[in-house]
Amino acid sequence: MRSVSIIGVGQTPVGEHWQKSLRELAVEAVQAALADAGVERPDALFAGNMLSGGLCEQENLATLVADFSGFPGIEALKIEAACASGGAVVRAAHMVVASGAHDLVVAVGVEKMTDLGGDGVTSGLATAADADYEAAHGITFTALNALLMRLYMERYGYTRRDFSPFVITAHENGVHNPQAMFREAIDEKDFLDSPMVAEPISILDSSPVCDGAAAVVLCPTEKARAFTERPVQILASATATDTIGLGPRKDPLWFESAYLSAQRVYQQAGVSPKDINFFELHDAFTIVSALSLEACGFAERGQGVRFAQECNIHRNGKLPISTQGGLKARGHPVGASGTYQILEVVDQLRGRAGEAQLGNVRIGMAQSIGGMASVAVTHLLGVEV
Amino acid sequence: MRSVSIIGVGQTPVGEHWQKSLRELAVEAVQAALADAGVERPDALFAGNMLSGGLCEQENLATLVADFSGFPGIEALKIEAACASGGAVVRAAHMVVASGAHDLVVAVGVEKMTDLGGDGVTSGLATAADADYEAAHGITFTALNALLMRLYMERYGYTRRDFSPFVITAHENGVHNPQAMFREAIDEKDFLDSPMVAEPISILDSSPVCDGAAAVVLCPTEKARAFTERPVQILASATATDTIGLGPRKDPLWFESAYLSAQRVYQQAGVSPKDINFFELHDAFTIVSALSLEACGFAERGQGVRFAQECNIHRNGKLPISTQGGLKARGHPVGASGTYQILEVVDQLRGRAGEAQLGNVRIGMAQSIGGMASVAVTHLLGVEV
Repeated sequence: MRSVSIIGVGQTPVGEHWQKSLRELAVEAVQAALADAGVERPDALFAGNMLSGGLCEQENLATLVADFSGFPGIEALKIEAACASGGAVVRAAHMVVASGAHDLVVAVGVEKMTDLGGDGVTSGLATAADADYEAAHGITFTALNALLMRLYMERYGYTRRDFSPFVITAHENGVHNPQAMFREAIDEKDFLDSPMVAEPISILDSSPVCDGAAAVVLCPTEKARAFTERPVQILASATATDTIGLGPRKDPLWFESAYLSAQRVYQQAGVSPKDINFFELHDAFTIVSALSLEACGFAERGQGVRFAQECNIHRNGKLPISTQGGLKARGHPVGASGTYQILEVVDQLRGRAGEAQLGNVRIGMAQSIGGMASVAVTHLLGVEV
Repeated sequence: MRSVSIIGVGQTPVGEHWQKSLRELAVEAVQAALADAGVERPDALFAGNMLSGGLCEQENLATLVADFSGFPGIEALKIEAACASGGAVVRAAHMVVASGAHDLVVAVGVEKMTDLGGDGVTSGLATAADADYEAAHGITFTALNALLMRLYMERYGYTRRDFSPFVITAHENGVHNPQAMFREAIDEKDFLDSPMVAEPISILDSSPVCDGAAAVVLCPTEKARAFTERPVQILASATATDTIGLGPRKDPLWFESAYLSAQRVYQQAGVSPKDINFFELHDAFTIVSALSLEACGFAERGQGVRFAQECNIHRNGKLPISTQGGLKARGHPVGASGTYQILEVVDQLRGRAGEAQLGNVRIGMAQSIGGMASVAVTHLLGVEV
């Protein structure tokens, strides 16, 4: 397999883009990424997206984006893996460059969620669950995650307050990211006072509904330095699944897909959790952050929250997370979030994260989760020091 | 790039499956393909599908199918390229095996169109057009193809009657395919008497709304003979796009995406149209068949219909098409059709096409088209004689 590197990135701000359409968001990110890479025309464009059909009445999305980016003729495919679509599209692009079929591929994650309003989005997101056995009964993802959070609190003896470090850290980091949706710091009182969505999940446990697009340009590592002085190598990528429903799982508090995809990238790259300098995790809800840290080997079972309380996740801690705000503060345009994560890892490794820049980082991990962790896509990225 | 072969295929009958759900169709095809290949557990499952979100309220589809096929844990991604999704999913699976990331990958195309009834399906299919600039004005795919057919008739001096060989041939061949939706022969009078949908397109110019799933199992060519005595090698695969809308094209009667993807596979495999023994083309409408033959180099511009009239497309002709009924008679469950085409090419090359078997075939081509040929995926498959 050919080694593959990322040579350019581009993004739109995350937020409610009332004046930009789905295609405009995607094209803006694609053109920014190609300009950053110094690439005039890619060989292929892969689009990661979850809800364009349901929310924007637009399938054939990759063709649309290739066309309006100015590249009719090139290969174009859409990749869907629920809220992990933005990670999955980079995985798919990685494979096609690794195979030797193409040299220059742009992967764009895009989502336009605000056009339909709340109920439409909630129904759309529920399509990531089992339509016949879960969603048909009216369960939403906030409710499903509330079940997990409640069980976690009871089993391990935590209170709601104990989850606050995830949110405080994400908002603190988001302040330094000009592309983030929320750029204000919050404190524990804000968190505790925030209104409930599905108890014990409050609005500040949850990531926002929003729009955005992020893109990365991939090429073979051996050709990367012709485009940039500081390419970022994809050390490993992997996707893993679990049962789509929570019901059949032995322990709903164990994210097997996150575990398996992390184990696969560790093995591919020959590293272990202690080698990872920072981690863009899927903080769609605070409980997801805790369970992700446990599944990926950074904390023992039941210790994900304690790991956060002990300041390990801060920008100066052992394992900084959500370094540019994460899904919580940067925002979670679902099919785009995984690509934003990878873009942010690239920015940190290239020393281009501005005021959010971490010192001395060499290996970063991004993990994008879909459904109730029924699918997870994990990437390890690295630079030579 | 590693050479890749197909070592097993499986399908459901095509039709109106009122008693089977989306997942059941997909799982049935996956399990049949794995049994045919003698594979117990694949490394990854890719699902090709266009409309599961809109018609079945189910995204995260590949995860669902992997789970219910008995393989939670493996990699799973959904691939969408409008009505070319069934070809695109095999292309994506081809790339991941070619890269060396996985050895055993199952690609399944699946669509469940009948649950919503006509209007829902028509709106769903329109998501393959440009949502803002075409579909929002109420245009349907039948209407768009009617514009092309009318222009073709006027420019080249044909009548409706001249298109009948495509339909008569497809139905003749469908009789011999036990999985086909329509297994009755028709004659020219049937064709001429069939009711109009969007003049000059009648119901018999059009492929039916239906359900179905087809799957193929891929592995590296060097390992294929451990699974089957008669693997079928993927000689080449390619995707190409065009503008998503008809408006900006220099000539709406030229399918640039079909042309480009065909040229790419010819070049990859070092062959020319005369080396192709048979062609599973995208006969969603008769006009699409004519334009596909021209774009792929089998007929001059304006001569696609004449090529059919001269009996070249018959099972004993120069270039048999729709050899097991095609989209017209086997049926067109949109996101699955491209996989059915590839499965049928494999069956012919392995000598397993039953009463539909062609004599002495060595190289077959399958081409799956999405939107108004805004995207095309082409595969060349072959066996040693």
